[in-house]
Amino acid sequence: MTTVNSEKLSSARFAEATDAFVEIFTASVDFDKRMAQQDIQGSIAHATMLGKIGILTESERDAIIDGLQKIGIEIEQGRFNWSVKQEDVHMNIEARLTDMIGIAGKKLHTGRSRNDQVATDIRLYLRDEIKRIRNELTRLQNAILDLAEREADTIMPGFTHLQVAQPITFGHHLMAWFEMLKRDNERLADCLKRINIMPLGAAALAGTSYPIDRHMTAQLLQFAEPSANSLDSVSDRDFAIEFCAAGSLIMMHLSRFSEELVLWSSAQFDFIDIPDAFCTGSSIMPQKKNPDVPELVRGKSGRVTGHLMSLLMLMKSQPLAYNKDNQEDKEPLFDTADTLINCLRAFADMVPRLSAKKDNMYRAAKQGFATATDLADYLVRKGLAFRDAHEIVGQAVRLGVETERDLSELTLTELQQFSDNIDENVFSVLTLEGSVAARQHIGGTAPATVRAAISKARAELVGNA
Amino acid sequence: MTTVNSEKLSSARFAEATDAFVEIFTASVDFDKRMAQQDIQGSIAHATMLGKIGILTESERDAIIDGLQKIGIEIEQGRFNWSVKQEDVHMNIEARLTDMIGIAGKKLHTGRSRNDQVATDIRLYLRDEIKRIRNELTRLQNAILDLAEREADTIMPGFTHLQVAQPITFGHHLMAWFEMLKRDNERLADCLKRINIMPLGAAALAGTSYPIDRHMTAQLLQFAEPSANSLDSVSDRDFAIEFCAAGSLIMMHLSRFSEELVLWSSAQFDFIDIPDAFCTGSSIMPQKKNPDVPELVRGKSGRVTGHLMSLLMLMKSQPLAYNKDNQEDKEPLFDTADTLINCLRAFADMVPRLSAKKDNMYRAAKQGFATATDLADYLVRKGLAFRDAHEIVGQAVRLGVETERDLSELTLTELQQFSDNIDENVFSVLTLEGSVAARQHIGGTAPATVRAAISKARAELVGNA
Amino acid sequence: MTTVNSEKLSSARFAEATDAFVEIFTASVDFDKRMAQQDIQGSIAHATMLGKIGILTESERDAIIDGLQKIGIEIEQGRFNWSVKQEDVHMNIEARLTDMIGIAGKKLHTGRSRNDQVATDIRLYLRDEIKRIRNELTRLQNAILDLAEREADTIMPGFTHLQVAQPITFGHHLMAWFEMLKRDNERLADCLKRINIMPLGAAALAGTSYPIDRHMTAQLLQFAEPSANSLDSVSDRDFAIEFCAAGSLIMMHLSRFSEELVLWSSAQFDFIDIPDAFCTGSSIMPQKKNPDVPELVRGKSGRVTGHLMSLLMLMKSQPLAYNKDNQEDKEPLFDTADTLINCLRAFADMVPRLSAKKDNMYRAAKQGFATATDLADYLVRKGLAFRDAHEIVGQAVRLGVETERDLSELTLTELQQFSDNIDENVFSVLTLEGSVAARQHIGGTAPATVRAAISKARAELVGNA
Amino acid sequence: MTTVNSEKLSSARFAEATDAFVEIFTASVDFDKRMAQQDIQGSIAHATMLGKIGILTESERDAIIDGLQKIGIEIEQGRFNWSVKQEDVHMNIEARLTDMIGIAGKKLHTGRSRNDQVATDIRLYLRDEIKRIRNELTRLQNAILDLAEREADTIMPGFTHLQVAQPITFGHHLMAWFEMLKRDNERLADCLKRINIMPLGAAALAGTSYPIDRHMTAQLLQFAEPSANSLDSVSDRDFAIEFCAAGSLIMMHLSRFSEELVLWSSAQFDFIDIPDAFCTGSSIMPQKKNPDVPELVRGKSGRVTGHLMSLLMLMKSQPLAYNKDNQEDKEPLFDTADTLINCLRAFADMVPRLSAKKDNMYRAAKQGFATATDLADYLVRKGLAFRDAHEIVGQAVRLGVETERDLSELTLTELQQFSDNIDENVFSVLTLEGSVAARQHIGGTAPATVRAAISKARAELVGNA
Repeated sequence: MTTVNSEKLSSARFAEATDAFVEIFTASVDFDKRMAQQDIQGSIAHATMLGKIGILTESERDAIIDGLQKIGIEIEQGRFNWSVKQEDVHMNIEARLTDMIGIAGKKLHTGRSRNDQVATDIRLYLRDEIKRIRNELTRLQNAILDLAEREADTIMPGFTHLQVAQPITFGHHLMAWFEMLKRDNERLADCLKRINIMPLGAAALAGTSYPIDRHMTAQLLQFAEPSANSLDSVSDRDFAIEFCAAGSLIMMHLSRFSEELVLWSSAQFDFIDIPDAFCTGSSIMPQKKNPDVPELVRGKSGRVTGHLMSLLMLMKSQPLAYNKDNQEDKEPLFDTADTLINCLRAFADMVPRLSAKKDNMYRAAKQGFATATDLADYLVRKGLAFRDAHEIVGQAVRLGVETERDLSELTLTELQQFSDNIDENVFSVLTLEGSVAARQHIGGTAPATVRAAISKARAELVGNA
Repeated sequence: MTTVNSEKLSSARFAEATDAFVEIFTASVDFDKRMAQQDIQGSIAHATMLGKIGILTESERDAIIDGLQKIGIEIEQGRFNWSVKQEDVHMNIEARLTDMIGIAGKKLHTGRSRNDQVATDIRLYLRDEIKRIRNELTRLQNAILDLAEREADTIMPGFTHLQVAQPITFGHHLMAWFEMLKRDNERLADCLKRINIMPLGAAALAGTSYPIDRHMTAQLLQFAEPSANSLDSVSDRDFAIEFCAAGSLIMMHLSRFSEELVLWSSAQFDFIDIPDAFCTGSSIMPQKKNPDVPELVRGKSGRVTGHLMSLLMLMKSQPLAYNKDNQEDKEPLFDTADTLINCLRAFADMVPRLSAKKDNMYRAAKQGFATATDLADYLVRKGLAFRDAHEIVGQAVRLGVETERDLSELTLTELQQFSDNIDENVFSVLTLEGSVAARQHIGGTAPATVRAAISKARAELVGNA
Repeated sequence: MTTVNSEKLSSARFAEATDAFVEIFTASVDFDKRMAQQDIQGSIAHATMLGKIGILTESERDAIIDGLQKIGIEIEQGRFNWSVKQEDVHMNIEARLTDMIGIAGKKLHTGRSRNDQVATDIRLYLRDEIKRIRNELTRLQNAILDLAEREADTIMPGFTHLQVAQPITFGHHLMAWFEMLKRDNERLADCLKRINIMPLGAAALAGTSYPIDRHMTAQLLQFAEPSANSLDSVSDRDFAIEFCAAGSLIMMHLSRFSEELVLWSSAQFDFIDIPDAFCTGSSIMPQKKNPDVPELVRGKSGRVTGHLMSLLMLMKSQPLAYNKDNQEDKEPLFDTADTLINCLRAFADMVPRLSAKKDNMYRAAKQGFATATDLADYLVRKGLAFRDAHEIVGQAVRLGVETERDLSELTLTELQQFSDNIDENVFSVLTLEGSVAARQHIGGTAPATVRAAISKARAELVGNA
Repeated sequence: MTTVNSEKLSSARFAEATDAFVEIFTASVDFDKRMAQQDIQGSIAHATMLGKIGILTESERDAIIDGLQKIGIEIEQGRFNWSVKQEDVHMNIEARLTDMIGIAGKKLHTGRSRNDQVATDIRLYLRDEIKRIRNELTRLQNAILDLAEREADTIMPGFTHLQVAQPITFGHHLMAWFEMLKRDNERLADCLKRINIMPLGAAALAGTSYPIDRHMTAQLLQFAEPSANSLDSVSDRDFAIEFCAAGSLIMMHLSRFSEELVLWSSAQFDFIDIPDAFCTGSSIMPQKKNPDVPELVRGKSGRVTGHLMSLLMLMKSQPLAYNKDNQEDKEPLFDTADTLINCLRAFADMVPRLSAKKDNMYRAAKQGFATATDLADYLVRKGLAFRDAHEIVGQAVRLGVETERDLSELTLTELQQFSDNIDENVFSVLTLEGSVAARQHIGGTAPATVRAAISKARAELVGNA
């Protein structure tokens, strides 16, 4: 990208050349060239349609398509000479086409405008990116399923308020993450329905006076249908915001996942080992093994939410139809897609290689009175009202805290001082294994239930692919 | 909200009373009492299920249900005595129930926790609100269709960059708004799919050791199905964020709609009249008629986006499962729902009463060289390449600007100096009516096309209802 | 708030009554009545000035001031009858004043408008709130200083990446929080400079034709000076956004503080004890002691950032001067002020009662090779280049990891296999006390340095008060 | 940036090479190389200090400084070979230094860490950028003052609610923008106070055991002072957020400025002419002259607010001290600085060349009953209470609306039917010139007052420079 020059687009109307700085400031080619292949794809479909309705002769159409394909290769191979004076990806490609094939190149823009052209390019681009994102997402979901299956019996403490609450299995915990990602995947699918609509043919804002065949173009580009209103087609960007909102949720979920990986790889928790390949060291403290990947992903959650905010504010209060403001939609969108793909990829690579430190997990679950609820349930089964049982267990826990013992380490006599409904068999409900196995209804943490959930999830995932 | 007292929930374990300020600071009853009816609805279903599986006797179950129904009425009639010492809506209702029916009341909480209870309440609440929001949205869509039909032939300038671009019809412009709202309506429907899943039975985080029947409860509460993972059920709030994202898009669309109503009711545009009932006056300038409703709605777009940001930041990095942070999910959610309903209602009431100032619109479309594109198309049909035609029209416009005349006011001789492809019949394509009528492909602004779009939209809307 | 009626403000100009729903929708009295005392304060100053320049007679002025003072008391005592038909706090008070004192009441609004009136009220309100916020902030800073002094010698692990990095003192860690809050306090002071400017006299947007004395009013209201431009005065809200930005930073800092309190009160870290008064229990798990206050404060960080976003989006693209959109500035502002005061208050109450579990902290610092950097520094002092020393220590740590021993637990022979620069005296630099004491430059963690930092901070804080 | 390799930083401790994708994913050199000159500047100061305290010999120090200066030139000239395997700007430069000068290069990192190094670099970078931003801001302020002086007598309508409210002068309107930017400039100055504090010496988090002289380094780098707490120094980024908040306000102000320029250059307002150099044309509508620069700037307001959101979310809940998340602070910061400089530059270039269409402005001010307030004031001077005068003017306006005449076009008899306090001299207060001239108190729109405000502003601006 070099030449900065002042022949502006609609030069005939303008008495004065564009200011050199302004030319750079307002140009978009530096970032929108990223949609070059989509732009070419759209132009080929448009030319094919123009040929069919007789605006282009067969040979004009063929010359255009051939030229565009060559330009596509030039770009792919890094041989294309992008120019800021041509403002954007569209004008760069059209100018090159006219250079190549002469007057026919100038006919390509018949019946369209950059307004509907760019709207089409973004949708094609997003459609491609969503496909890639969903691939990585699905890969991560599969990795979680595999790990959950391996760890379906592994007991760990379940936390609420970061306090040990009840024993769960690591497999069950992993499946919570699976469920979040499953909804994220659905959201992307829903978003795609609204993206896969073709704006081409809306022209500047009102449609065109040529007898264009929008159904044909839509079919060539594999859009579900042409858009229903030309003003709406060129001016709205709600689909891009919806994509960033779905992306923000993915990143929010990954930030929670990351938070736990960071916590669990601390010396204090020491529940998992993240392989060295996903960690880095310190320039000053040689002993450190920092969980860089989860930390970085956690940090990137702000990035995508920032883009979401940016786009909502961008669109706020814009009158119809197209305004130059909308040029600002692309960079946040590109960066959102890149961030999602990279973060999901890093996690999909890392998760299969996480290893659980089962002994540490088990030991942690034994502390913290994790089976207190089981004692309460025991008392309820003995006939107490839940709230009364709750009171009794509270007293037992208090004794445990004071004497630094777990509930299972209190003596029967000690326990009985709180309720004479307690007898010898109480100690069986206070084991971690018993506690976990008892939660066997749908959604519960019992190993068998978790395995069933994994099977069901695996079947659905295959079904979606 | 009156009595502030220190008997805290799990008092047995606690050596010290809650600080009085902390008690108020951490209590949620002031705002979560708004979900009281949903809380009761959920408790009735839970009690019914507990009865079926034998945890409650029939008479206990009936006493609970009867008590809850009476409490529902007390609340409805404003006779319920909310207490901060009971922290939240759940404890307030349960305490009142136990007051009313004694020991059986204490059994209601068996097999559940406030964590799954509140998650259920929010989903029931949101389901109700989405229904109300979609009703108002559909009412507004219908109002737009009616107005668009009335104004299908009304010519106005179409703008890009707030510059007159091409003539369009007001009906066509209105249909752009319809399309935006149509997608908004779809997004709410998609969001509802993920809301309508039942968390009840997840208990605190791990499920429960009682043999609960979650399918039964789900059916009683008309949820599509019980949730698949207990940790996920009590900890995630992605559905609430998705709702706020959908709401932010609705408000973004309304802000654009509002912006145009404000512009159009200025003395400079003077395209529409907003009825007095939707405007207010000035305390100092008696001549003012301010478009208060659109201005206020435009301003409220920031409000909903603010809530969206708030919730994304709330959930960022939270480890599983439930944390107290999540108490902060409710106020933004309630305010989002209220804002959406009120803004949509105001618009649905106002739109049918907007009146177009057709003469002003027509006059404005005649200025600004709005048919320049038609001249370019004319030249293309004469055989010129589009880009060359564009150059020629640019020269003609420049002459028009300099001599302060529209293209249709230039003489044939003047026009011919730019291209000898122009002849007498050029003046027919330079009329507004001709320009508009020519854009008759799907999505175009031709009156007949707009009427067809309205019919199609109306049929779909009836189909959805 | 009761009577809803249709006599609208500038009724003479309006042919049609306001729609009843619209009247409620557009009214602000429900929330702006919160600024009633500031409104009265501003009106008293305005009336005093009008008296001086002869617009009001002495007796009119006195009647107005007397009436306003009585209304202030009515409001304070909850005896004031707020009415939605009077739209806002300003009209409610003026209407009541006219009821009370007759025709003179109607003269109060001479030379002002609700546009400058509300801008003045907000600034008075914010000035009051900032004072209260800074009081709580300073109280929290003092609490931190006291605790830091008590814990200046307490050794704990310093973390980076949540991995144990180097030993520090708890007092030093606490002083990091102090520094953050110190900057927050400064930011509020800076923000106040821009708030404490008087808009009154800008009238609707252009000033007034009466010979008002704005310097006098500014002095009466203790504003630094009258604003310099009337359009700017009534339309901008940058000061409110700046306040919310400062508030967002305070909450961001408190969220980090909270995160650490939550971590440290987990069973895994077990570094501190938060008094029961700041915790609550669980409805299902009687053993739980949840750090509710820090969790809730952490969650509330999203709330204030949401308000900041809301206000930025509100103001985006608004043309001058006043628009109805601006009515939306108040609720986010009020809630930001409330949230800040409450969260700071809760922390200022809680911090003095935190207790450090010194043994646990010390034990944790001994793990994790926290003195590895000290070994590297030792080697550098023996003449090695830092990067080479780093390599050697890395090898030693690796041996430690493999054999599950700390560096200080390796034998001299083992250490010497990595470098023959190591001799017996190495063990002295590997103690926690030695490591901490060595960092005695300004900003370092040595106890003496920390004590000096506390003294300096205490002196500055007294200086500011 | 080419070679991707696996010798990781603290390789001795690591059993496994970094995954190739992870290496790229976690590297920051692609963007943080932007701070290369600041990094070198900081390293030179650090080496100088290490020389003084005897850690480096004089010749080591000189070799390091000489090497760094050469590297600075290599980078400036684009000859530096950036490598992803070296992760970041710091390691790239240090590796090159060691290549160049051997063992001495490895000594540079003594007594510091990348944590304090990067914190120092960012602050140096921001200090430079703020200087550049304030230069452009001041240039724009000057441009506004010049234009305001030229247009101090130009009458235009003042708007509220986009309705014509009262006549003002264009100079007065311009000065509203000046005031906004003045506060923005102050905010940057306040922000700079908190940026200009030196973190260097904090090392990883706890300070260092070498006897470093932080006052010396601070002085060499022209920082106001060294930071007071090492943990705070390496972990907080509040200063960066404060900068983005100040930037968001600048962009919010420019968005409002832009909105008005766009409105005013529409055919409907037609108040100003934006020179062609700041506009571009349309690919399909040759007559269009689009106000691209203001539109683009308006759109970019979302961008900076997005970055602000991103950083707030990034920092939320991060435990001390440094976490990898913080690597994400740079890109939003760089882009914020670039956006501010470019937008301010474009405006500073454009404003001097705006031309007012005075006749159109005057004509617009004559419509819309802009002197209604003056009539009310007239009646008040005749003895009526303001609210009663307001009623009377309302009736007169209503007659004007119905008969399509301005107040000044009503007959005396017609006016007198509303109040017999009106006599012949009323027509003098109904002129635009009279109305404007009457608002002569500080902050008012009278030409003389505006000129005085300009003089005062000019003096202050010179004083600040």
